[in-house]
Amino acid sequence: MTTVTTPAQQIGTRELWDRYKKYLCDVPGVGLRIDPSRMDLDDAFLEKMDSPMQRAFAAMRELEGGAIANPDEGRMVGHYWLRDAKRAPSPDMTAVIESTVDAIEDFAQKVHTGAIKPPTAERFENLILIGIGGSALGPQFVSDALVDLDKPGALRCFYIDNTDPDGIDRCFDRVRKTGGGLAATLTVVISKSGSTPEPRNGMLEAQNAYKQDDLDFAPHAVAITMEGSKLDKMALESQWLWRFPLWDWVGGRTSELSAVGLVPAALEGVDIRGMLEGARQMDEATRVEDKLANPAALLALCWYLSGNGRGEKDMVILPYKDRLLFLSRYLQQLVMESLGKRLDLDGEVVNQGIAVYGNKGSTDQHAYVQQLRDGVPNFFATFIHVREDRNGPTLEVEDGVNSGDYLLGFFLGTRSALHEAGRGSVTITVPRVDAQEVGKLIALFERAVGFYATLANINAYHQPGVEAGKKAAASVLEIQAKLFAYLEANKGSFRTAEEIAASLGSEDDVETIFHILEHRAANPDGGVESEPGDSPWNATFGKR
Amino acid sequence: MTTVTTPAQQIGTRELWDRYKKYLCDVPGVGLRIDPSRMDLDDAFLEKMDSPMQRAFAAMRELEGGAIANPDEGRMVGHYWLRDAKRAPSPDMTAVIESTVDAIEDFAQKVHTGAIKPPTAERFENLILIGIGGSALGPQFVSDALVDLDKPGALRCFYIDNTDPDGIDRCFDRVRKTGGGLAATLTVVISKSGSTPEPRNGMLEAQNAYKQDDLDFAPHAVAITMEGSKLDKMALESQWLWRFPLWDWVGGRTSELSAVGLVPAALEGVDIRGMLEGARQMDEATRVEDKLANPAALLALCWYLSGNGRGEKDMVILPYKDRLLFLSRYLQQLVMESLGKRLDLDGEVVNQGIAVYGNKGSTDQHAYVQQLRDGVPNFFATFIHVREDRNGPTLEVEDGVNSGDYLLGFFLGTRSALHEAGRGSVTITVPRVDAQEVGKLIALFERAVGFYATLANINAYHQPGVEAGKKAAASVLEIQAKLFAYLEANKGSFRTAEEIAASLGSEDDVETIFHILEHRAANPDGGVESEPGDSPWNATFGKR
Repeated sequence: MTTVTTPAQQIGTRELWDRYKKYLCDVPGVGLRIDPSRMDLDDAFLEKMDSPMQRAFAAMRELEGGAIANPDEGRMVGHYWLRDAKRAPSPDMTAVIESTVDAIEDFAQKVHTGAIKPPTAERFENLILIGIGGSALGPQFVSDALVDLDKPGALRCFYIDNTDPDGIDRCFDRVRKTGGGLAATLTVVISKSGSTPEPRNGMLEAQNAYKQDDLDFAPHAVAITMEGSKLDKMALESQWLWRFPLWDWVGGRTSELSAVGLVPAALEGVDIRGMLEGARQMDEATRVEDKLANPAALLALCWYLSGNGRGEKDMVILPYKDRLLFLSRYLQQLVMESLGKRLDLDGEVVNQGIAVYGNKGSTDQHAYVQQLRDGVPNFFATFIHVREDRNGPTLEVEDGVNSGDYLLGFFLGTRSALHEAGRGSVTITVPRVDAQEVGKLIALFERAVGFYATLANINAYHQPGVEAGKKAAASVLEIQAKLFAYLEANKGSFRTAEEIAASLGSEDDVETIFHILEHRAANPDGGVESEPGDSPWNATFGKR
Repeated sequence: MTTVTTPAQQIGTRELWDRYKKYLCDVPGVGLRIDPSRMDLDDAFLEKMDSPMQRAFAAMRELEGGAIANPDEGRMVGHYWLRDAKRAPSPDMTAVIESTVDAIEDFAQKVHTGAIKPPTAERFENLILIGIGGSALGPQFVSDALVDLDKPGALRCFYIDNTDPDGIDRCFDRVRKTGGGLAATLTVVISKSGSTPEPRNGMLEAQNAYKQDDLDFAPHAVAITMEGSKLDKMALESQWLWRFPLWDWVGGRTSELSAVGLVPAALEGVDIRGMLEGARQMDEATRVEDKLANPAALLALCWYLSGNGRGEKDMVILPYKDRLLFLSRYLQQLVMESLGKRLDLDGEVVNQGIAVYGNKGSTDQHAYVQQLRDGVPNFFATFIHVREDRNGPTLEVEDGVNSGDYLLGFFLGTRSALHEAGRGSVTITVPRVDAQEVGKLIALFERAVGFYATLANINAYHQPGVEAGKKAAASVLEIQAKLFAYLEANKGSFRTAEEIAASLGSEDDVETIFHILEHRAANPDGGVESEPGDSPWNATFGKR
């Protein structure tokens, strides 16, 4: 990055304005703009990237046409069809996509009017969403960005997005203290495969909570899952209130505009047709095979440029708008789970990825922006600037100056301070935060991730690294089962973790055994007791 | 990092257990443990770091004794005195620290019982906290970790932590829809200097909101600021309900155990004496000048090791507990604002710092953990493991297995998968999440940051880089004033940003002028109108 040595109070130059005009990607009908003027972008780089970008456009064309774009899992990648169903590769798929959106809208409307209601309350008032990963991050982002408290009939949403018992209890506790309690609460369980442990555990905990309140779970329960999954079968058999379909060609991190995101959004009163329309418009704009006119292509090129195509720099997301606080967490999943890959498409070890973090401006200027400006130059910033300040009249906080002027000033000022210190940034401008604009942002980043994946020659649509952790977790539970059988068979005998591991012939598992024993002993109904030793590992454990 | 090539299902080895026992830092009376077994720590490194660590211990001794540990700002650094007031360098300081905690407790108790009440409602029910940076991040972290909904009289807290007009409106909207509304709402304005624009703007917006609801602001308002500041004088003159002091020897990012954190926590019903006691215990434990017995020293050494003392690796914070979700954001400020420095103490350019991000496990295993395991090896993980699962009985989700067993399994499994792939991690274990443990975590990281700063030879207690952005923001407002005077003098004439900049003789400011014009034209009472052009920069702007 060329360092422009201006005094701190100067915040622009004519050269930067010329770069703004030269490289700005403005899609007039779409409204969103990408300004890469503060990246080290030049014509030589753009020329060099011309044929790689052509390959990315071609790969995207094939993907959208129904190619097996996720080769490891043998799947099509079809999240673009969700907002333009006639692009789906078969009339059946088009029909089911369209009918699902209709069904979601119809269901939400009936919930809002009370036509669909719980057995023991006047109407549904609350929503518990049970899901993890994309099934929680997308809905949380959209809810925080778009929920309007004044929308009649709209449900208040609570989340169970983990298998933390205390976190689950807190969710039910909050719901019980909210108007109507669990009796007026719809619970949506989201699990594509229907067998992921976290939503399964959440669902069982929810069943139990309803039971504690003398309520039937089924008439309060909705499943979002693939047809024929374990969850789908159970929902059918137990006569749950409703079921909505998922498809194998929608990945978790690109599922926000499938039933995963649309059902909770519609129930919360969000304009889901607006989100779909915004995403459709952005998809159109990012099909243009001209890298400076295509906002997703330009964004992917900025990522490639900043990190030499190898993720050498972190992506810091700085939206200057409270409603976009969850965007960084949403993008953390979308970008890192898609791009963080060990092997490229040729099977070479590449350890790709781009680390993503951030919260919101100007708040973060009073937090980590100190390091961005002065510290390790291991990042590039993505500013998101929103032009509209608020609904209704504004207040002057000084003569001729309002809070929104300060927000703009801080954004421009921080961007300038970073630039002055040689730290690159790209700016995305949107007119406002509404359903259409949120749909556009989602579609923009989805497509940019897709383009970048081709530039880096990786599969953006699988997640092989997640398996290792899952398998290891399953091993912990296997060890636990063996351990408990041992403790049961040796009641009254108290031994150290090392002694127990030796008895089990599982010396390599001694640390795992130790952690399981300590965990269970720390909990009142853990079924394990402990006697302290002169060190943690000399404590003894057993069953009485 | 040595890669241990075990099959995916194996999650431990005897060697790792031996490392666990060898390097574990366990402070028996304190309960918290640091396990660096999955870092590439060895005796040679520890020996090499012996004298640097001795210097860090000495520097900390001087700091705690009242040395000017923040030389650039000529200030003492005294957050450790907040929880052990007799260590303060003068009896006056000891007395004022102690009397402030007493006053906070007394005030909160009177609010809870209704002895202190608003003029037009039975009691205070809600709290709006207006503050930015440490004044919001600490209180948010503590609130989410510790608030107990059943505590009688405790206030519900809402935040204004930005100068986003829409974000401010959303806060008031939520409060107005909550039991009692603004009439039952206490507003706490936090600003150490009393002149930071964001809390100043928030305060003015709050005054205006109370006025709209026909309420006097002053009897609902509390100031937390330095004696004699602009805010302090105004609160005194306008007869605000209460004032609590801040001192120049407490920095924003280490202010959680000053009035900044204690006032909202006490009002929300949190056990503030417990937090102080936990921090005091951790401070004692981290005064031990033995690097393997001192949890903060060991943590700082792990940071130093992982990033070669130059922040080459990001710190990923992964607490396996919903209540600790905000910890990463809190630490992002504490670590990055403290360590992200351009110059070292000798004036050399070093561009130090450690990037921090994270959310919570096991949730993040369904998000970016894919990249952690398989992608760019540019980080080390900090796992936080909590032994106690929940209050009250637990539910079996399978035979002999509960949700908490899964949480432990996912933590151990993910840690093992990262280790297997050569990614280092350090594990912090706490028995539970309560006021004492939260106090300990805060004190642990504060001290680790202090030690690391000495190891890296930087001042952890200033933030010079923040100034550049503030000055640039002030320039934007100056340009705006000049621009508006011009538009007012040229009513009815519509010109491009370039033409206006030329007329003002401010060609270098053209981009800033353009953004101000677009911002104001996008808002109904912005006082600027625009006519579209064939490109964004050919649009014309003026006043009618």
